[in-house]
Amino acid sequence: MKKIAILGSTGSIGTQTLDVARANADLQILGISAGQNVKKLEEQVREFAPKLAVMWSEEAARDLAVRIADTDTKVVSGMDGLLELASMEETQILVTAIVGMIGIRPTMEAIRAGKDIALANKETLVTAGHLIMPLAREHKVQILPVDSEHSAIFQALNGENKKEIKKLLITASGGPFRGKKKEELKNVTLEDTLKHPNWVMGRKITVDSATLVNKGLEVMEAKWLFGMELEQIQVVVQPQSVIHSMVEFKDGAVMAQLGTPDMRLPIQYALYYPERRYLDGERLDFAKLGSLTFEEPDMETFLGLPMALEASRTGGSMPTVFNAANEMAVAKFLRREIGFLDIYDVIGQSMDRHETRKHPNLDEILAAEQETYQWIESRW
Amino acid sequence: MKKIAILGSTGSIGTQTLDVARANADLQILGISAGQNVKKLEEQVREFAPKLAVMWSEEAARDLAVRIADTDTKVVSGMDGLLELASMEETQILVTAIVGMIGIRPTMEAIRAGKDIALANKETLVTAGHLIMPLAREHKVQILPVDSEHSAIFQALNGENKKEIKKLLITASGGPFRGKKKEELKNVTLEDTLKHPNWVMGRKITVDSATLVNKGLEVMEAKWLFGMELEQIQVVVQPQSVIHSMVEFKDGAVMAQLGTPDMRLPIQYALYYPERRYLDGERLDFAKLGSLTFEEPDMETFLGLPMALEASRTGGSMPTVFNAANEMAVAKFLRREIGFLDIYDVIGQSMDRHETRKHPNLDEILAAEQETYQWIESRW
Repeated sequence: MKKIAILGSTGSIGTQTLDVARANADLQILGISAGQNVKKLEEQVREFAPKLAVMWSEEAARDLAVRIADTDTKVVSGMDGLLELASMEETQILVTAIVGMIGIRPTMEAIRAGKDIALANKETLVTAGHLIMPLAREHKVQILPVDSEHSAIFQALNGENKKEIKKLLITASGGPFRGKKKEELKNVTLEDTLKHPNWVMGRKITVDSATLVNKGLEVMEAKWLFGMELEQIQVVVQPQSVIHSMVEFKDGAVMAQLGTPDMRLPIQYALYYPERRYLDGERLDFAKLGSLTFEEPDMETFLGLPMALEASRTGGSMPTVFNAANEMAVAKFLRREIGFLDIYDVIGQSMDRHETRKHPNLDEILAAEQETYQWIESRW
Repeated sequence: MKKIAILGSTGSIGTQTLDVARANADLQILGISAGQNVKKLEEQVREFAPKLAVMWSEEAARDLAVRIADTDTKVVSGMDGLLELASMEETQILVTAIVGMIGIRPTMEAIRAGKDIALANKETLVTAGHLIMPLAREHKVQILPVDSEHSAIFQALNGENKKEIKKLLITASGGPFRGKKKEELKNVTLEDTLKHPNWVMGRKITVDSATLVNKGLEVMEAKWLFGMELEQIQVVVQPQSVIHSMVEFKDGAVMAQLGTPDMRLPIQYALYYPERRYLDGERLDFAKLGSLTFEEPDMETFLGLPMALEASRTGGSMPTVFNAANEMAVAKFLRREIGFLDIYDVIGQSMDRHETRKHPNLDEILAAEQETYQWIESRW
């Protein structure tokens, strides 16, 4: 039996993790969590009979407790609930599929309790990589990437010596606006932005793909996860999203992972690594594939990437500001309060005014996040 | 110190193996061999000071002995010489860069003496895979592929469990005549045939690339090397020769090795496996790469591939006949005695008349080769 808990089980990655559990009889779900979606968590409790279910809000937790009073599942709430979920005694792997910096503290709790982490929460390494990676080493736990790009790199590194890496090549689809120039982006709509060419994902990450903020976050994450210098990470636009990422070694060999766009693959790979299990679904058909193309990212138009690189180079609390500002800006864009290009303005101005703390602890990181939120709220 | 001997040091793979030795001070060349090229072997003796140098012909050996009388290198000749080279006491790896079935006996001798094999001789596994692979297992020696396709697969399998392989995807450039139909191939010249789009190689293998016989031989070789069923091996035409081959696993992930066309990479990889060392030379530049395309091989026009599959399916002595007939046909084509499409006729007719021996030993394989040669000589 492989015993896992899922931080954020009702979102895109969470529900696909449960799809993987449905297909693998030896995968046991010990704990699940959601923000507000009581109905969906009730369904999941009834299907997977976890020991623990966490609702973020106390009210929703009370609601859930009443609904599932006939089951053996214990209901808890809030950060205390997430921390309890993260450190359940029997859990081997914690899947961190929750969105936002809220995921960091439970992740650290799980690491301290010796759980391996199947990492889907971007903020963890982007804002707290300098805390997480040493902690993971100290407690000898594995950080197993769930993102398709990082999973591809992780797969390409299988059996290889990290000292022999020359660079990581993170692929990007380029998003729905690839090829457009700044002038053409002024009046794009929310609907245009949500049309990702290849992947079906949540709304926030789909906007991040269009701005290239997502690719910037992935570069920042890869830097920590694989212990690379920023200069060793190159973004390559591969519009068909068939090559999920690559590694170039010092002998010039490039190892790549290719596949159809199916997040269940990296999820399953993280859960069973180094074992590969059968996964149903479409396969790449090279005869029908036609062609794969490659481009350099347009860093003059899609400022999400160069801004992320700058935040990462500055380090300290700056990546937190980059991430928090983007989060707030995207929320406003999704509410149609600001335009597409305003997202870059919100991020840029937030970074400009921030005085970087060099080696922030978790409280200082979370404070930088709140400070950024408040400043943006006061201005936009 | 890594100590190696090279069976066939004056050909394309042999000289590139010496290039690798030049760049790696800890690579010691203990033995070298050539067919007739006394002058080149003398140069190599003077540069690398091997303990042993083998000339195939006795006359050439005598000539070489006189020329290098001032050195400490011992000169021997013929099959006895090759067997001595194959089993030199201090050698760790034998590079089998010799062309033809002449390489099989020394390879078996080296395996019995416990040497790992850096395999560049195609005939070894194509004709004697059923003898070589069990022998290698018995003596616990590694068969390390040097061919770019097999090396790519070998690299893609690094750290993976072979039981989790779904299929091997061997890439092919399609050769200089890709896209042409049989009618158009009737009058192609030797010069047209020798214009390989991507790789600079010997003349025989360049013709084999144009007929797709080479790809057929590679499929047969891969079957033995990786212990696959023929149905698990798919040929994919990738005209830019950037993807050197791939492996699909049962979870749907495809691992690929990409690179520039430089044989020194697979040679060096085989010699230092699992270590990757720096190799100077051009790197893939994805921004300049443009596009990679994929096609199905045209098995109606380029009969080399389906004929190879048929020979492999029949098994026993049939792959030897396929290989020997092709060797003879290509030699005749290179001497302008027959046309391009006649190569398929020579192979097809040779296979048609052959009565397959089911489990041939080495003598029976070599007899099948001679028989095929003689029959072709008597007819064309």
